[in-house]
This record gives sequence, structure tokens and C-alpha cells, in this order.
Amino acid sequence: MHILLLNGPNLNLLGTRQPDLYGQIRLEDIENSLKDLAQQKNVAVSCCQSNAEHEIIERIHKSKGVIDGIIINPAAYTHTSVAIRDALAGVAIPFVEVHISNVHQRENFRHHSYFSDIAIGTIVGLGAKGYDYAFDALVTTLQK
Amino acid sequence: MHILLLNGPNLNLLGTRQPDLYGQIRLEDIENSLKDLAQQKNVAVSCCQSNAEHEIIERIHKSKGVIDGIIINPAAYTHTSVAIRDALAGVAIPFVEVHISNVHQRENFRHHSYFSDIAIGTIVGLGAKGYDYAFDALVTTLQK
Amino acid sequence: MHILLLNGPNLNLLGTRQPDLYGQIRLEDIENSLKDLAQQKNVAVSCCQSNAEHEIIERIHKSKGVIDGIIINPAAYTHTSVAIRDALAGVAIPFVEVHISNVHQRENFRHHSYFSDIAIGTIVGLGAKGYDYAFDALVTTLQK
Amino acid sequence: MHILLLNGPNLNLLGTRQPDLYGQIRLEDIENSLKDLAQQKNVAVSCCQSNAEHEIIERIHKSKGVIDGIIINPAAYTHTSVAIRDALAGVAIPFVEVHISNVHQRENFRHHSYFSDIAIGTIVGLGAKGYDYAFDALVTTLQK
Amino acid sequence: MHILLLNGPNLNLLGTRQPDLYGQIRLEDIENSLKDLAQQKNVAVSCCQSNAEHEIIERIHKSKGVIDGIIINPAAYTHTSVAIRDALAGVAIPFVEVHISNVHQRENFRHHSYFSDIAIGTIVGLGAKGYDYAFDALVTTLQK
Amino acid sequence: MHILLLNGPNLNLLGTRQPDLYGQIRLEDIENSLKDLAQQKNVAVSCCQSNAEHEIIERIHKSKGVIDGIIINPAAYTHTSVAIRDALAGVAIPFVEVHISNVHQRENFRHHSYFSDIAIGTIVGLGAKGYDYAFDALVTTLQK
Amino acid sequence: MHILLLNGPNLNLLGTRQPDLYGQIRLEDIENSLKDLAQQKNVAVSCCQSNAEHEIIERIHKSKGVIDGIIINPAAYTHTSVAIRDALAGVAIPFVEVHISNVHQRENFRHHSYFSDIAIGTIVGLGAKGYDYAFDALVTTLQK
Amino acid sequence: MHILLLNGPNLNLLGTRQPDLYGQIRLEDIENSLKDLAQQKNVAVSCCQSNAEHEIIERIHKSKGVIDGIIINPAAYTHTSVAIRDALAGVAIPFVEVHISNVHQRENFRHHSYFSDIAIGTIVGLGAKGYDYAFDALVTTLQK
Amino acid sequence: MHILLLNGPNLNLLGTRQPDLYGQIRLEDIENSLKDLAQQKNVAVSCCQSNAEHEIIERIHKSKGVIDGIIINPAAYTHTSVAIRDALAGVAIPFVEVHISNVHQRENFRHHSYFSDIAIGTIVGLGAKGYDYAFDALVTTLQK
Amino acid sequence: MHILLLNGPNLNLLGTRQPDLYGQIRLEDIENSLKDLAQQKNVAVSCCQSNAEHEIIERIHKSKGVIDGIIINPAAYTHTSVAIRDALAGVAIPFVEVHISNVHQRENFRHHSYFSDIAIGTIVGLGAKGYDYAFDALVTTLQK
Amino acid sequence: MHILLLNGPNLNLLGTRQPDLYGQIRLEDIENSLKDLAQQKNVAVSCCQSNAEHEIIERIHKSKGVIDGIIINPAAYTHTSVAIRDALAGVAIPFVEVHISNVHQRENFRHHSYFSDIAIGTIVGLGAKGYDYAFDALVTTLQK
Amino acid sequence: MHILLLNGPNLNLLGTRQPDLYGQIRLEDIENSLKDLAQQKNVAVSCCQSNAEHEIIERIHKSKGVIDGIIINPAAYTHTSVAIRDALAGVAIPFVEVHISNVHQRENFRHHSYFSDIAIGTIVGLGAKGYDYAFDALVTTLQK
Repeated sequence: MHILLLNGPNLNLLGTRQPDLYGQIRLEDIENSLKDLAQQKNVAVSCCQSNAEHEIIERIHKSKGVIDGIIINPAAYTHTSVAIRDALAGVAIPFVEVHISNVHQRENFRHHSYFSDIAIGTIVGLGAKGYDYAFDALVTTLQK
Repeated sequence: MHILLLNGPNLNLLGTRQPDLYGQIRLEDIENSLKDLAQQKNVAVSCCQSNAEHEIIERIHKSKGVIDGIIINPAAYTHTSVAIRDALAGVAIPFVEVHISNVHQRENFRHHSYFSDIAIGTIVGLGAKGYDYAFDALVTTLQK
Repeated sequence: MHILLLNGPNLNLLGTRQPDLYGQIRLEDIENSLKDLAQQKNVAVSCCQSNAEHEIIERIHKSKGVIDGIIINPAAYTHTSVAIRDALAGVAIPFVEVHISNVHQRENFRHHSYFSDIAIGTIVGLGAKGYDYAFDALVTTLQK
Repeated sequence: MHILLLNGPNLNLLGTRQPDLYGQIRLEDIENSLKDLAQQKNVAVSCCQSNAEHEIIERIHKSKGVIDGIIINPAAYTHTSVAIRDALAGVAIPFVEVHISNVHQRENFRHHSYFSDIAIGTIVGLGAKGYDYAFDALVTTLQK
Repeated sequence: MHILLLNGPNLNLLGTRQPDLYGQIRLEDIENSLKDLAQQKNVAVSCCQSNAEHEIIERIHKSKGVIDGIIINPAAYTHTSVAIRDALAGVAIPFVEVHISNVHQRENFRHHSYFSDIAIGTIVGLGAKGYDYAFDALVTTLQK
Repeated sequence: MHILLLNGPNLNLLGTRQPDLYGQIRLEDIENSLKDLAQQKNVAVSCCQSNAEHEIIERIHKSKGVIDGIIINPAAYTHTSVAIRDALAGVAIPFVEVHISNVHQRENFRHHSYFSDIAIGTIVGLGAKGYDYAFDALVTTLQK
Repeated sequence: MHILLLNGPNLNLLGTRQPDLYGQIRLEDIENSLKDLAQQKNVAVSCCQSNAEHEIIERIHKSKGVIDGIIINPAAYTHTSVAIRDALAGVAIPFVEVHISNVHQRENFRHHSYFSDIAIGTIVGLGAKGYDYAFDALVTTLQK
Repeated sequence: MHILLLNGPNLNLLGTRQPDLYGQIRLEDIENSLKDLAQQKNVAVSCCQSNAEHEIIERIHKSKGVIDGIIINPAAYTHTSVAIRDALAGVAIPFVEVHISNVHQRENFRHHSYFSDIAIGTIVGLGAKGYDYAFDALVTTLQK
Repeated sequence: MHILLLNGPNLNLLGTRQPDLYGQIRLEDIENSLKDLAQQKNVAVSCCQSNAEHEIIERIHKSKGVIDGIIINPAAYTHTSVAIRDALAGVAIPFVEVHISNVHQRENFRHHSYFSDIAIGTIVGLGAKGYDYAFDALVTTLQK
Repeated sequence: MHILLLNGPNLNLLGTRQPDLYGQIRLEDIENSLKDLAQQKNVAVSCCQSNAEHEIIERIHKSKGVIDGIIINPAAYTHTSVAIRDALAGVAIPFVEVHISNVHQRENFRHHSYFSDIAIGTIVGLGAKGYDYAFDALVTTLQK
Repeated sequence: MHILLLNGPNLNLLGTRQPDLYGQIRLEDIENSLKDLAQQKNVAVSCCQSNAEHEIIERIHKSKGVIDGIIINPAAYTHTSVAIRDALAGVAIPFVEVHISNVHQRENFRHHSYFSDIAIGTIVGLGAKGYDYAFDALVTTLQK
Repeated sequence: MHILLLNGPNLNLLGTRQPDLYGQIRLEDIENSLKDLAQQKNVAVSCCQSNAEHEIIERIHKSKGVIDGIIINPAAYTHTSVAIRDALAGVAIPFVEVHISNVHQRENFRHHSYFSDIAIGTIVGLGAKGYDYAFDALVTTLQK
């Protein structure tokens, strides 16, 4: 089993960007923590962060036939990218959506997601731990 | 540490009600699974399911000073109960919101929650596993 | 065949409450009239009125496997109770929705029902007679 | 007592048009069934179906002083014809509105009616039987 | 003259719940203060607080013929309960609506009340004193 | 100069239909009054009332090259007929829109007109006199 | 009989302001024309133009018991002044609303009037002639 | 194979009506051009233009079992006729929707169509050529 | 302690204007009643009524450093004056908002206030008595 | 060249009113700074601040033929005054709109301006400096 | 004459992505078919597909002075990219918009296009054939 | 002090793209003019234009610790890019937003900006000069 962790724009700033909102953990820490977890479960994990919508789209395209499930935090693209949504629907790989901060406590435009209705499920506001839960849920779903 | 698991209306039907939507697991199974998990972490868990808005409110009131964190699946009351929201805000106990099915794939009126903006975070669509993640997240938060 | 007649909040006031709006017939008269009709058709009828949302929910739960069809006038809960809607969907018993007064001539918030789209059909504004038509329609549907 | 049964556009297709939605009964059957019912109650019935808005309007105009009550299924004109509404209000003949299918389960634009708020009442989704109930309700109302 | 003071959900927490929002006065203090005021005016006062919608409804039903006027703080039910509104309209007892905190400074969903348009009047944001003014206004109105 | 007076659906009922709303004057009286006025000004007038949208459309088509200006009371079609609007724009004959009753005091759906923004002007609520003013305004405009 | 002609803000610019929109007639011409018309009908006319909301309000107050009918072009205040609306409702003097240009062809915010629903009627887009028609309609109404 | 070309209200004016918007081609030209094209493909074509909603509805009804596909330009009825939509759905004949002008550049009310979601597809703004493309697409679809 | 009573447009008509809505009490009576009350509490009161928005603004400006609290009934300006709101926020003097009639029973545009969210509180529909309660509440608040 | 600086309601409070929002500079300072700047460029400047809508309107009227360009901060009237907008359009003098604070960070009702779409341009949130930029932009534009 | 065929994000997946929605044709097939068609008409065609918004923008920029017309299927960017719209408007090259599937039968967010109102026209739901029609329409338009 | 000038998509077309809207100045001219201005004030300026959202995001990221203030014209991304907004918020560098044309006079979708509420301020419609003012305002702010 091979899982892809996809992080969207500005998440490379994690740890330095608005730490009161996003915590002090760095993206690298999140990726390493997930890899450890995966190793325990004998699952392969690939990680990708990009600020470019088209790179995310193309990474999803290339996942077809290679990747079994995706954990995605589309960050700002959550609210604007029909193209990434279409890429996910196009390759038909099951995915879980994660948000580190509680988007429901923030601006109105962050309350709508182009991803939630085609995701397996969504985890919001539980910090970096949310990725671990997403991983577990994804593996559980794929094993059925 | 003492955690309360609160399940709202119709969740007593779990396992029999629309199994294609909610799965075949029973509420009892969920509660037992959570208790096992808690025991491992040396945390006390109390469980309560009610179809009555006022019973849920009063259970929350009684939790003040006794309960450290709440896992709540408000079910249908997610979309209609300001009173339960006010109870949670009133006792100021941190809580995580869980939904078994992916509410974003269902009717429009299920897309709004009176709880998400005052919750620590929300888990949607990950089935019964969602409660375990909520438990873990809640304990992690409380330990900080 | 066993039919349940469920009447929602304030309908116990029928005959005394706003008689220009609801007529002078009492709830008791409606229930008796329906029982007579049922006897003629050799159908059992149970009646229940409650002002409590949870009592209505639980009565619906208990109907599973016992009741073949429901006639429901959710009264004020028509416009606010997702929980009763979920109970009806959960037990999957066919039902007809009845309103004594013409809700379309009243306040805007009475124009939306949480029940109509999952009911067999709806009868509005035909007074106490509406229950008799609902009974007939329900029996006809169940006999198919 | 003289009742007019008015059926709007496309209802001449009944029995052939989308039978899963509208059933297999033909308009002729509905009209005959209503005439039988009326004969039992010693009431005269006239029937009219038209696809033309102006023919419906003019039939209503001609009813003034001749017809005591109207059963109308405005079909598609339910959602678009202020002119038929005005004709009904203009002649001030009491009427009941009937829809064979459950319009609340269909497209959003079918959820609003230009007739319900000036009708005695409305019957939705109970199939061809709805006309019989409307007839009974209308006669009951007129006899008061 | 007999006045009923009705307080809705979570108001039993007064004094402990969010004191920066609701003040430090307890419900008991409010009830006693109103009773003192009533005694001076030779008016009887009954007090009731409930977290249950149906208990509030039924208390209103029982007031018919016994109670001359009601002071109600529907709390969270202000924004969600058509059923309590219908109960008040059903028994036709004049009432004044009170809110301790200034609901206009809070969440959008608190800006709409199902009660204001059928109340004599409304008092918002004047703290526990609001009940005293409501009492005075109610007695003044009833004496006319 | 040749003016066409076009009256829409249900206006043939004038004098009998809801006289408190539309007055007791008959359509015939309005047409005769306008003809008298026209004769004084040496202007030809043709009159047409129809309940059929297509007859109104076709009357407008036939007016091209024959009629210099139109006075139209589209009645119910004011709010629903894009087709009559298109006919008027298609023949490009200047027109004045008249409503006998004050549509702004009536139902919300009567507050929007498909005609006002392409008319010379609009007269609302001044009764049958409105037609005379429209005639005068139209002649004045055409003479420029 | 005594009629008041009230013109709102910027109408003193008539003849110079956007002549393609408002024509080249001056306010003085309109007032004189109306006075001539009034003299023929033996009716007194007073004229007032003001750019100040409060002056218009106070002129309306002073009209109580002195003025029988008002012709008002509230200009920009049409869309913003509840206070002038309240003044007109407060003195209960019948009035006709006039707009020189066709407001329906202009910005969206000009499509709503705070006056139309309490006016006898409204004349829009017929230029300075609109005042004459309003005068005639007002006198006709008052003579009934 | 037999195709029906249906043109809605005011399209008989083509060539004379607003030529800057609709071009100078006449309806006759369009119909002849389509017939030529059809002859080349050995397909029968019938043509019908009507300003009357009911005539269009009835032409569609009569097409059942006779016509294999419809090209329809519903013109103004695009935005207002649920009845024609229902006729098309009722006979279940595949159809393509055509608009000569670019409706998206015109008034807001022209941006919604009651036909697009049940059509095979839609062609907008490509002038009279749009009919030829629709014909080709329809034949291609039917041949599958 | 010095309190300012500010009454907005048309309130000088009190007692004569729509007495069924506003009662028969005159503004003078209200002012005198308030002065009596104030004398008992040893508080100075100044009174001001104006129909001019700018006079109200300037009265508020002049209150800075002189007036301790304001009772304001902004009347029609409640719904339209950002400028008076800004004046009150600018001088930062605490104020209570009063409405004599129940604005929630009236037109929709009266349901929104530019003042409520920056007021201490609001009193609606309790007649002239509302001013007395406002006075008491204001003095109570200022004494804290 | 002659420029008019127009400041709207409450701006006379500058320096004392909410200094965290508007800064500590006084209106006098702004006017003097602008006069200095103008002198350097050999341009005349007149200054006017008013809390009265009609005074602003009339100042604009009087500017016709005298003033070449206007710098306006309509303050609260930005969001409510169609009349000042009409005055500016009426005299057709080019103008720049200035706001000292960042209105986009404040209440929703401050996000809409009746002026921006007819202004040359708008400067928001740059403090008192905004007037200097507006002056420079206006002179630059006028010199073209 | 030189035509550019521009295909947006995810269209490289054609033939493999959701074939029930988009058919089994590959992008390569579409491009080849268009080139054949172009050769017959002696027109040059260039083809470009990109998942990157900026690549599409820059391809449009480079087309200035080189390309005579564009056929664009903006895919997901149809609903989100103002930047591509601006690029097309900036170079002022005429274009036709194509969608393979019927976007009106899909999610609400697909019903709005940022391109339709500045396109020559739009073709929706006619499959890969839509590109051929667009080509023909574009060439026809350019030849005028 | 080091300032970054960031220009968004299509601004490389300046001088050639829609010159009636954007003027004839080229981007190069704007950049040079700003550099001159900066030199006078002894401030360093870097310039960047990109049509790629991710390049803008990454330029912002790299500015952290290097750049003191940003002047940004996000062009089309103003209305669609949450990701650039998040980048700016993430690095917490103060910025001023500039638009060359008056966006308030253009399409509705250009009236909302994702940047204005987190900017220091915004300059709209003042042409290329807007950049100079932004520079001055930014430097002034930073110097405080």
C-alpha cells in the first residue's frame, strides 16, 4: 500500500507562519511523523508540498496506478481550486482532507471547501495530529 | 482525566439505521471500543446517548468540575440546537465534534453546524473510527 | 395492518387554540374519527400526541417492526426538527404529512418543511378531514 | 352543486409520460373516477384539460356564477402563471390544488406555487387519489 | 393579577456561566427580586426555569385561565423554537420578552427572534434589571 | 398618428373582479374614454384585450409600421412574460406601461416588471385615469 | 382645495443637471405650469424644493390641516429616507409620487422606493408632464 | 431519421428584429439551410415556429413516436416555460438547445435556462450557424 | 450626573401621529415625566427633539464632557443613519436605545438598527414607559 | 485651478474621536497641510466640513463653474447618501474619494460606497496622507 | 488564418478520466481531428494543453499578432480564473468557449463561467464534436 | 529600507492591453519611475511581475526578513487568490494594494478583494500614479 501526503500553498512556512494559528511544528516534522507511523504499518508514504496549483494537479495525475490513497491539506486552494478537485475526481483515488487550524473559526470564505463532498472524510482543527488520524482512517478504508 | 462521550438523537439506532450511510457498527461497540482505548491511556470515560435536547444540556451542566473534555456527536441537533451550544459554552469544557457519515455529501441543511466554531476541531465522515481520533486529539490537547 | 397517528406540539390545544385558524374540533374527536374509519377497513390505529421532540422520536423508534405506516402532523416541529426527520428516515416506515391549517397563508417560516421531501405526500389546509385522506392514502399505498 | 376539474399542461400525457413519476393511470380514468364519486354525492362535475394558459384562464372566467368549486392541478403553470392565479382570485371561486407527484422531491423550482396561498388547501404526492380527496374536501367546505 | 416568569435553557447557570456576558447575579436572585417587586404591587408571581422545550410549552398550556401575563427569556430557544411561539399564541396570554445580554453584539444567529413580533415588547441587554422593567410594563399593560 | 391600447389577462373582468382593488369601471368604459380623448386630439386608437400571451405578441408584431405608440397594461404578464417584452423590443414601438392598482401595495412578486426598463415610463395605482395620462404622455413624446 | 408640490434634493438643478436624463425644463417652469393648471381647476398650489431632509419633513408636518394632497418627487431621498416616509404617514395626507426620469433604466439602488407602497400611485419616466398627471390624479382622488 | 426544428416566440421576426443582435438572416433562410443539410445526410426535417407556448407543447406531444430528435430555440420561453420543459421530458425525445445571440452578454434574467440541464447540449451565440451544428450533433448522437 | 434625552424625526408629532401605533401621549409629557423621575434621583436631564440628522449629530458632539449618558429614540434614523451612529461612537458616551412601538411587528426595513450593537441595550414596544426604564437602566449602569 | 476639500459628518472630531482608528491629527492640520501643498503647485484650495447632508449638497451646487475638482471624504454619508452622489453627478466636477481608516477592516455596511463608481479613484486606509495623494492625483488628472 | 486550440487542466486525462462523463476519446484524437478539418479549410492550427493557469495566460499573450482566433475549453478554470479571462480580453483575440460535458447537469459551481460573456459564443455538452463546431464558427466569424 | 513592487497577471501587457482602461504607460515605466522616487528617499526597491500565482507566493515567502514593505497590484488574483493572501499574512510584511483602473466601475466580480482587509490601505483608479502614492504611504508607515 502506498499513500501520498499532499500539502498545498504556504504550508512550507509551517512553524514560522502565524504560530498562534498553526502551531510551532514544521512541515518536515509532520512528514517524518507520518513516515514513522507508516513504517509501523508497513505502508509506503510519499510527501509533496507545493505552492503551485498545477504541480499539485500533476502530482495527482501521476499518482494514478501508483498511489492507493491521498491525504491532502489543500490550504488556500481548498476554497478556490476546482482544478485540483477535478484532478482528484479524475484519477478516482480515495482521499482524506485535513486542515490544521479550525477553519470554522476564521473568515467566512474559509467555510466552504471544494473537496469535502468528494472526500472520504474531513479532519479540521486538530493540529498536526490530524494527519495521523487521516493516515489511519485512509489505511482502514483501503483495507476494507 | 475524565472524558464524556455524548451521542445525540437517533444514534441508538446505529447498526440498524441506514447501514449504507452509517455502517453496521452498534453504539455499544463504539462505546466499548472507546473505553478500551481509554483504559490503555489511563483515562476515565463516561458514555451518554440521548434523544432529548434537555437531557444532553443537563448532562453537560452536570459535567462542570467533573469532566475534563467532551467528545460530542450532536447528530441532528448539530444543525438546530443553539441550546446545546450554549450549554457547552456555558460550562467551558473543551470538546471535539464527530460525525460518522460525510455530512458534506448530504442535504444542504447538514452543511452548517452550530458547534464547529466553538469546538477544538471536527472529524467528519471517517466512520466509528472518528471517535477514536477525537479521543486521542482531546487527550493530547488536555495534556498540554 | 397497523397505523400510527402522531401529532406534534400544541395540538393537544385543538378546539381551544385559535379556533379561527384550526377549527373547533378537538384532538380526541380526530383520533376517534380515525379509529372508526380504521375499524371499517380492519386496520389497527394507535394514537400519540406529544409536545416533546424526544418522545416523538422515541415513539417512532419503537414503531420499527410494529407499525406499517405513520400519519404525522409535526406542527411546529415541521419547520425545526431534523431529529424527527432522521428518526422517520432511520426506521424507514412510510408516512404522510398533514397540516390542518393552510401553512402557505401564514408566516414565511411555515413555508418550509423538513418532512415533505421524504414523505409519501402532504395534505395542507383541509382541516381535520386531512387526517382521513392521509389514512386512506397510506392504506392504499401499503396495500400495493 | 357543480364542481370543475381543471388539469393543466402535459397532463393529457398521463399514463404514458414518465410513469415512474406519475403512475400508469390515464387522465380519462381520473375524470371518470371523479364523475362516479360525484354521482354518489349528487354533485355535477365538468372536466377540462388544456395545455394553453389562456384557455384555462377563460374556462375560469366562464365558471363565474356556474361553478361552485374548482379542483385544479396547474401542473407546470403552478410555478409560472400569475395570470391563472389572478383569474381564480378574480372570480373568487373556492378551489383545492392537487399535485400527483411529490413536488418536494423534485427540482427546486417546483417547490414554489403561485396557488397555495389562495387555495383552500393543497394535496401533494398522493397520486390520482389526490383528486378524490380534493373533491371530498371541496364538497365538505362548500356544504358549510 | 398573576404573572409567570419563564426562563429558558442554561439560565440555571446564571452567575457561573460566562459572567462577563451575563453578570454575576444568580437566577434565584432574579426570581426573589421580582417577587419582592410583585409583593409591593400586590401581584402574584410564579417562577419556572427549564432546559426542556416541552416543559416550557406545557407550563404555558397550564397557564391558560390562571396566569394574566408572562415574562419570558427564551434564551437559546429564542432563535429556534416555533413550538414555544405557538404555545404562547395558542393560549393568547400577553407577554414581554427579555434578554439579559445584548444579543445584537453577538453571533448573527442571535439577531432573529421567533417571539418579538408577537410579544408586547422586548428588552435587550439591560442585565437582570430587564426583568423588573418587563414586570412593570406587563402590569401597566394588563391594568389598561 | 395611431395608438394601440393593449390590455392583458383578466382585464376583461374589470368592474366585476375585486372591485375594491380595481374599481367599478369596465374595460369598455376605459376604451371608450380613451377613444373620446383621442378624437379630440385627432389621433386614431385601436383597442385589444387578450388573455393569451401569444395573441398579445402577435398583435404587437402586426403593429409594426402601422402603430406609432402603445399603451400597455400587461396585467399578470408584467411579472412573467419575457416573450411580450421581446416582442415590444423587437418591433421597437415606443410604449407606456400602466397599472390600475398600486402593485407596490400587493404581493412581492408584483414588485418586479419585465417592461418598466424598456418603457418610456410607467403609471401605477392611479386607476382608469392612468390610461388617459399614458395616452397624453405617449402623444407628447411622439410629437417630439 | 390646497395642493403642495414638494421637490427633493438636486431638483433645483433641473435644466442644467444631466439634461439628457432630466430634460431642459427648469424647476421654475414646472412650478409655473402646475400653478396654471391649478388656477384652471380653482385649486391652490404651494411649491417647495429643498435639499434638506429635515426641511421636507417639517414642511410636511406644517401641512397637516392646511394641505389636502401632496405631489412629491423625493429624488434621491426616494431610496434612503424612512424619515420623510414617516412624516407623510404621520400627517396622513394623500400623496402621489413622481419621478421625471425612468428610474428602472438606471442603477439598481434606484429601483426601490420607500414611498410607493404608501402613495396613492406613482408616475415614472414621463418627464415634467408627470407632475401634471399627478396633479390631475390627486384632485380626482380628493374629489371622491 | 426525422428531426423537428422548433423555434419559439418572436423568431418569426428574424432579419427585421434588432439585426445588430440577431443578424439579418430570416427564419426561412435558416429552415431552408437546415433542410439542405438534412437532404445531404438523408434525414427528414420538419420545421415549426410559434409564438404560443401551448402550440409548442402540443407539437412536442405529437412528435412522440414520429420524431427522433429536436432542435429547439425556445427564445423567451427559455427563461419562463416549465410547461415546455415538461413536454420535452414527457415525450423523452433527445434535443439540442440553440440560441442565436450570446445570452450571457444580455440581461441577467437571460442567464438561466429551464432547458439546458435536460438537453443533450447547448449552443449559444454562434448565430444561425448554431442550428447546423445542433443538427450535426443531434444526428451524431442518434446514430450511436 | 447629567442625562440627555434625544428624540429623532417625527417624534414631535407624538399624540397626533398614528395614535393606534404610538399612543396618545405627547412628547412634552414624556419629557416632563422623565424630568420628574430624574429629580427624584437627583440627576439632571436635558431634552432635545430634532427632525434634522445633523442637529442630532451636533447635539451629540456637544455632549462630550458634559453628558454622562444618552437615551435615544432615533426613530426613522434608526434604520438609515450611519452618521448618528458614528457620532455616538465618536464621543463614546454610553446610551440606551428606545422604540415606543414594536418595530418587529412592522415593515421589514424596521427590523434592522444601526444602533443596537453599540448600545448598552434596547427597549422596544413598551410605549412611553420605555423611556423611564431606559433612564433607570442608564443611571444604574453609570453608577457602577 | 481651484480645488474643494469636502469633509463629511463627524470629521470635525478628528484627533479626539477614536484615535486608534483615525489617528491623532486634527482636521485643521489636514486642511493646512493641503493648503501648503497647493500653494507649492500654485493651486487654490477651499475647505469645508459639514455634518449636514444638505450643506454638502449645496456646497457642491455652488461649486459649479467655480471649482475644477473635489476631494471628498463623505464619512458616514459614503454608505447612505444618494443625494450627495446625485449632486456630484449633477455638477459633473471630477472628484477623488478619500477614507482615512481602512473601511474594509470594519463593519460590513462600510464596504459599500455610493461614490466609488463615479469617482476618478479612491484612496482608503492611508491616513491623513490620503488627502495629499488625492490632491496630487486630482491635479494630475485635471492637467491632462 | 491561424487558430489556437487551448485546453485547460485535467483535459490531458481525456479517455481515461470519468469516461461516462467525458467519453473515451483522447485529447490527441481531438487535436488530430481538428487539424484534419483545418487542413481542408486551409487554416493553420496550433494546439496547447496545460494544467497551469500561468502557462495558459502566457500562451494567450504570445498569440497577440500571431493567432487570429482561439478555441478554448478552460475546464475547471472556467469557474475560477479571472486572470485567463483578463488575458483573453487583453489581447482582444476572438474566441469560442467549448465544454465537452453538459455543465448544466453538474454541480452548481459549474453553472457560472468567467468566459461566456466575452466569448463569441459557447458550445456545451456536445462531446468532442463541439470543438469542430467551434472551429467552423470561429472561421466563419473571422472571414466576415 | 527595502520595498518590493509586486505586479500580478497580465500587467506585463500594460501599454498595449486595453489602453482606454489602463492607459498607455508600460510596466517598465512604472518600475523605473518608482525606482527614481526610491532613490530620492534612499530606499531600495525590487520589482517583480508574474502571471503565475505560485511565483508571487514564493516571492513573498522569500521576502521574509529581507523586505520591509510590499506594494502589490494583484490584478485578476485580487478576486480569486486566497493563497497569495495567505502568503502575505504568513510573512506578516505590511503592504499597500494598488489598482490602476477604477475596479468599482467594472464587473461586479471585481468589487471584492481578498486583500483589502489585511492591507494597510488601498488605492484605486488613480492610474500609474497610484504606485507612487503607495510607495510614499508605505515608507511613511514604516518610518513610524
